[in-house]
Amino acid sequence: MNKFVYDIPTKVYFGREQLSHLGDELKKFGSRVLLTYGGGSIKKMGLYDAVLKEIEKAGLELFELSGIEPNPRIESVRTGAQMCKEHKIDVVLAVGGGSTIDAAKFIAAGACVDHDPWDFLSKTWAPIHKALPIVSILTLSATGSEMDTAAVITNFATQEKIGRLDRNLLPRVSFLDPTNTFTVSPYQTACGSADIISHILEVYFAPEQDLYMLDCFMEGMLKTVIKYAPVAMKEPDNYEARANLMWTSSWAINGFITAGKRHAWSCHPIEHELSAFYDITHGLGLAIVTPRWMEYCLEESNVDKYVQFAVNVFGVEPSQDKMAVAKKGIELLANFFFETLGLDDNFTKIGIKSEDFPAMARKACAGGVISGFKPLAQADIEKIYQMCVE
Amino acid sequence: MNKFVYDIPTKVYFGREQLSHLGDELKKFGSRVLLTYGGGSIKKMGLYDAVLKEIEKAGLELFELSGIEPNPRIESVRTGAQMCKEHKIDVVLAVGGGSTIDAAKFIAAGACVDHDPWDFLSKTWAPIHKALPIVSILTLSATGSEMDTAAVITNFATQEKIGRLDRNLLPRVSFLDPTNTFTVSPYQTACGSADIISHILEVYFAPEQDLYMLDCFMEGMLKTVIKYAPVAMKEPDNYEARANLMWTSSWAINGFITAGKRHAWSCHPIEHELSAFYDITHGLGLAIVTPRWMEYCLEESNVDKYVQFAVNVFGVEPSQDKMAVAKKGIELLANFFFETLGLDDNFTKIGIKSEDFPAMARKACAGGVISGFKPLAQADIEKIYQMCVE
Repeated sequence: MNKFVYDIPTKVYFGREQLSHLGDELKKFGSRVLLTYGGGSIKKMGLYDAVLKEIEKAGLELFELSGIEPNPRIESVRTGAQMCKEHKIDVVLAVGGGSTIDAAKFIAAGACVDHDPWDFLSKTWAPIHKALPIVSILTLSATGSEMDTAAVITNFATQEKIGRLDRNLLPRVSFLDPTNTFTVSPYQTACGSADIISHILEVYFAPEQDLYMLDCFMEGMLKTVIKYAPVAMKEPDNYEARANLMWTSSWAINGFITAGKRHAWSCHPIEHELSAFYDITHGLGLAIVTPRWMEYCLEESNVDKYVQFAVNVFGVEPSQDKMAVAKKGIELLANFFFETLGLDDNFTKIGIKSEDFPAMARKACAGGVISGFKPLAQADIEKIYQMCVE
Repeated sequence: MNKFVYDIPTKVYFGREQLSHLGDELKKFGSRVLLTYGGGSIKKMGLYDAVLKEIEKAGLELFELSGIEPNPRIESVRTGAQMCKEHKIDVVLAVGGGSTIDAAKFIAAGACVDHDPWDFLSKTWAPIHKALPIVSILTLSATGSEMDTAAVITNFATQEKIGRLDRNLLPRVSFLDPTNTFTVSPYQTACGSADIISHILEVYFAPEQDLYMLDCFMEGMLKTVIKYAPVAMKEPDNYEARANLMWTSSWAINGFITAGKRHAWSCHPIEHELSAFYDITHGLGLAIVTPRWMEYCLEESNVDKYVQFAVNVFGVEPSQDKMAVAKKGIELLANFFFETLGLDDNFTKIGIKSEDFPAMARKACAGGVISGFKPLAQADIEKIYQMCVE
């Protein structure tokens, strides 16, 4: 059990009708706001107008950058950072899902330097000394970007999708109104839920044990997603379901459950290459990869953790045959992803070709062997990709 | 499900050998430190010397107030506040358990006003506009004061024990090193554990439902205390047990699990009168009161929550006879307090006399009927006290 520092000061307004606090929160940072968002969905749902009303009411000066992509691209970050400099922006307000918030994070950091923002993510790994304050209004429960220090940016020119953690990227304030996710489609709800589950499992399946309390929390969050994702898909405006998914998305990845664990994540780098090469939805890629990764890592020495998972999350009856219990847990997770949530269950269905496996695997472990639950070198990752074919 | 604001910016250094960060953290607030602590235990365990070494290394100026009582008294608060004014203190460093941290909170607030600090707690309920920054080093897992906005102060002159929540009272930084609780006696470990359990049950048993995710967390924390309190009593230097109890103590009461619930707490005001009249250990009083309170509140309309508790926390087999399952859960909790932890199971054993019940009950609901899981007026509270006699 390692020591750790817990330091997550993001202030969260959770629930309906909290937007009246937006103006006051923004004003704490200054008067010039860059509003960033993706496509037109926030206009259709009325959120855009509501945000503008609050900004106007607070007497703030507004600048806008729309069109942030899913798997947000470095080009958008460059544009946003440039706008911040030109217009002397005080605070970046991201309205959207994880992609929009991730882009806002590197826009906010890019605004404070003279170099290309990609230098933060490319081999130069430029230091992030500061960033403009970031405020977010979340519209998709998935990545947890609303309450964490991470952001992932894609550079199609170099076929790279790279993430980075930095305290300067942590949103100061986030508005989590479950009703803002009522319009999320069943498919995106499923992908977001798979993303949340993956975040938890990346920490849960670790080579070192940490606090039992946190294992209980992780199992609770997994049960929450398993209980409510199907409800939210069937009844998009079920507040209880949307609220549970939303708060779980934040706590799955804000660092709380990680505590002193130091191992690397596995499924995320393996999946990032899928998105980088094929621009597929992150959560879908994770759903396909995760059960295969679990199967690949399973061995006598770590079977107890799988048993714990199967019993505590899926209610599998414990038995002497631990391997059977473990495999049942993996099977039930796969069933959840592919039957309950209805996600595509293999690479063939989504057009990912085996000829790219060596290149993707090489990039996934470009930083060296992935020292996760089980160490994974390029050959291991290729095997996991192969398991995903059908 | 109500809206809520989550805003808990306390930074926590968790684990062994984190004290090297103390000087830097204190320096952020200034150079003049008031160190507060209780009896000599922190000297015996070597923590006092370790703290002084860090303060000296950081070149800070030190002032000391020792002798903070369990159930800390307003007299100590007055002395501390006066010292802060006289010595122009910049930051209050509390080293100890909940009592020491609670006292530090009102010392820090009292330092910023001209009036008697008791005015914050007496009928005048003077506003708390600000307080000096508070840093804590925890030595007892129990009250959660290290990460919450609450403090409870006793005034024996008026036979009052009064608590108050205020954001200005939230510690800025807390050091949670489980090894600092290795010297906590089995009895105090038991009382602290009962306190943690009570904090959770006060929220868990609520008239309104909130997030399922948080119910899972609460059940996880209850299981954690039930698993590790007996271990810590038998093996005082079991790091895993102490660490689990410590982190649970903070999360049981920092506001996270409360989310949008607005009901009043019940057992705490009922118990506070025991401590105010008899100066008994808070956790012991809670252990005696809690199962009786649960029994008193149980009815057909709320039996499902008891069943959930019995099944998910104690693994009771669900059955058609919900009342039987519910009562089994209460019985197992009582067994845990009185058999596993070995705490006294009734008032007679600890010298609390029935002649005081009317006065204690009247004071417990001095602010009106306690609108908790089940509304409790004076007569209800007297009945609960009566159930505690034997």
